Amino acid sequence: MADGGKMVPIKVSPTADVYPKRIMEYIEGFLISKTLFTSCELGVFELLLGSERSLSAAEISQAVGASLDGTERLLAACTGMQLLNRHQDDGKVSYSNTEQARLFLTRSSPLSLYQSIHYHSKTIYLCWHYLTDAVREGRTQYEKAFGVSSGDLFEAIYRSDEEMVKFMQLMHSIWNICGKDVVTAFDLSPFKVICDLGGCSGALAKHCTSAYPECTVTIFDLPKVVHMSKEHFIKEDDQRISFHEGDFFKDSLPEAELYILARILHDWTDERCVELLQRIYKACKPGGAVLVVEALLSEDGSGPLTAQLYSLNMLVQTEGRERTDVQYAALLTAAGFTNIRHCLTGKIYDAVLGHKKA
Amino acid sequence: MADGGKMVPIKVSPTADVYPKRIMEYIEGFLISKTLFTSCELGVFELLLGSERSLSAAEISQAVGASLDGTERLLAACTGMQLLNRHQDDGKVSYSNTEQARLFLTRSSPLSLYQSIHYHSKTIYLCWHYLTDAVREGRTQYEKAFGVSSGDLFEAIYRSDEEMVKFMQLMHSIWNICGKDVVTAFDLSPFKVICDLGGCSGALAKHCTSAYPECTVTIFDLPKVVHMSKEHFIKEDDQRISFHEGDFFKDSLPEAELYILARILHDWTDERCVELLQRIYKACKPGGAVLVVEALLSEDGSGPLTAQLYSLNMLVQTEGRERTDVQYAALLTAAGFTNIRHCLTGKIYDAVLGHKKA
Repeated sequence: MADGGKMVPIKVSPTADVYPKRIMEYIEGFLISKTLFTSCELGVFELLLGSERSLSAAEISQAVGASLDGTERLLAACTGMQLLNRHQDDGKVSYSNTEQARLFLTRSSPLSLYQSIHYHSKTIYLCWHYLTDAVREGRTQYEKAFGVSSGDLFEAIYRSDEEMVKFMQLMHSIWNICGKDVVTAFDLSPFKVICDLGGCSGALAKHCTSAYPECTVTIFDLPKVVHMSKEHFIKEDDQRISFHEGDFFKDSLPEAELYILARILHDWTDERCVELLQRIYKACKPGGAVLVVEALLSEDGSGPLTAQLYSLNMLVQTEGRERTDVQYAALLTAAGFTNIRHCLTGKIYDAVLGHKKA
Repeated sequence: MADGGKMVPIKVSPTADVYPKRIMEYIEGFLISKTLFTSCELGVFELLLGSERSLSAAEISQAVGASLDGTERLLAACTGMQLLNRHQDDGKVSYSNTEQARLFLTRSSPLSLYQSIHYHSKTIYLCWHYLTDAVREGRTQYEKAFGVSSGDLFEAIYRSDEEMVKFMQLMHSIWNICGKDVVTAFDLSPFKVICDLGGCSGALAKHCTSAYPECTVTIFDLPKVVHMSKEHFIKEDDQRISFHEGDFFKDSLPEAELYILARILHDWTDERCVELLQRIYKACKPGGAVLVVEALLSEDGSGPLTAQLYSLNMLVQTEGRERTDVQYAALLTAAGFTNIRHCLTGKIYDAVLGHKKA
C-alpha cells in the first residue's frame, strides 16, 4: 500500500491559489517557541520590567550580555509576536514589555510562566527531537536525549538536584495560571482534610487553602521532593499546610477526606493507575473523594489539540498518557470509586471527581 | 537595571480572568512542528495517499513500522491539527488525509513541502536548540549543533553529499509553492537571457521558462551542486535550461540580460552582497536587470513575523540576515543599479528588481 502511493497522480487545479498557510505556521512553530524561550533566558522581559523607560537594542544587548546584531533580530521577532512594544521617536527605536509579557514572562510575576518556559526550552525541546523514535518504539526517549536510563521514571526526571528543582518549578508555574480553576471546578468545601499526593512544590495546596478557608492540606511526596519544597517553595510558616514523606506506591497513605492527584495519573500505565487508586480508596474516609486533575481528551478524538500534544509528550517523557473522562472514570471505577463526574475548565487542566460511599 | 526588576511588584487584578492563550500557543509551537515532522518522516500521509480507503491506527502503525500506542497518539494530534480526517463507523476508527495533507505533505505532490519539512526537522530544529548562544555570540551555531567548522559557510552546509542533496531539496520544495509568484511579481518578458546565480536545483529556472516562453535560463552554481542538480533534479532534456559551473564570488559570470539572486543575499554580510552585486553589474548587459528574491522585512519593524524569524535563522545558520526593501535598494544602489522597485507577493518570498542603464 505504501508503494502504491507513488503511482497516484496528485491533481492540483492550475487556477487555485493554493498556499498552505496553516502548514507553514506549523513548520515555523519551533522558531516561535525558541524565540520566546531565548528572550526569557536572556532576561529581556525582566530587564524591561525593571526599567522606568523603554530601552534601545543597544542598551538591552549590553545589559543582558548579548551581541547587538542578535539582540536586534530577537527584539524584532518579539515585536512581531506581540511580546514587545516597539517605539520610534526621532528615528530612535526602543522597546517595552507588552502587558502579556509583563504578566506572564517576568520571573517575579505571580502569574509567571518563566520556569515552565525554561523547562520546555532545556528539557522538553531536546526530548522532542526524538519524537519519531518515540513513536516507532512506543517509549520514552530520556536515554537518547540525556543519557539517563529510564528504568525508574522519576529517578530519570530527578537525575540531579538541579533537574529536580527545575521540574518542580515547571509544575509550580503552571498552577500560577490554572491552579484556582482546578480546585474550584467542584465545590470541595465539604472536605476538611485534604491530601495532595505528589503535591510537589505545594502550589496547588496553597490554592486549596485560599479557596477553602476551613481545610488543611497535607503534601505527600518523595522525601527529597519534600526537602526541596521546604527549601525553595513553602518558606513561610503556613499552619494549614503540612508535609508527609513517602512513595505513594509503597508507603501507607495518610487518612484524608479528599485526595488530590494533579498531573499524576498521566505519568503511569492503566495498571499502575488502578494500583494507586486502590491504595487511595483504602485510605480514604467513607464519604470522601479523589480529585483527578488532568488535561482531558475529548471522547470523539477531535481534541483539544493541547491534550493530544501532551499525550505525545507523555510518550516521549513518561510511561503514561492523557486520557478521556470516560477512561479516567473506568480507572476510578476499577478502584471502587462511584458517582464520578468531570468538569472542563476551559483552560489546559480539567477535573474529575470520584466518591467513596459514606 | 536588571536587578531593579526584582523590586517592582506586579499587580494582577484579582477579578481579571487572565489566561495567556497566545503565549501558551507559542510554548507548544515546537510540539506542533515536531508532530508534523514525525508524521511526514514515518510516511503517514504517503501511506494514506496510496490507500483506496481510510486506514485504522493498527494498519497505519504496521505499515510504517511504528508502535500502535505511539501511532494512535500521533494520529490523534494530526486530527487536532486538521491534517487528518477521523472516521468512526460502528465503533471502528480510521483516518484519511485532509486536502491540505494530500497536496502539501505527500512526497509525490507537485506542491510537496516534504523535503523542506525533513530539513527543518533534522537540521534547523537542532541548530535552533542553540538560539540563545547564537544571540549572545552573534554568530552561527553549526559547530555546536553538528561539529562542523563554520569558517566557510557552504563548506559547512554542504558537509556531505547527503547534506547537500537535503539542502537542495529544501530550496527546491519552497519554490513548489512560492516559485510562480516570485518570477511573475514583475513582467520579466523583456529579458530573454536569464542567469540564475546559485540556481541550485533549477526549480526557479523551470518557473521562468514556464512563465516566459521566449527566455533561456542558465543555472550558475558550484560544480558539485551542478552535478547533483543534473543527477537528481533536472533529468529531462530541457533545451532552454543550461548549467554553468563556478563560484560567483571568484569566477567570471556569464553575460545575461537578467540575473536572479533568489535567497542568496540573505546568506551574506552587506559587504559581500555589494561585492557580488558589483560583479553582476559588470557582467550585466546594458538595459538588463537583477531580480532579488527574499522575505522582505517591513520598514516599521512590525513584521512579517516569518521574515523576522527567518532573520534569526540566518543568524543561527549563516553570515547573513533578512532585510527591508530599503536595505536591499541601498545594496543595489551601491553596486550601480538604478530604478529599483519591490513587489510583495503576500506569500513568504518577495521580489526586488534593479536595472542597469541601457
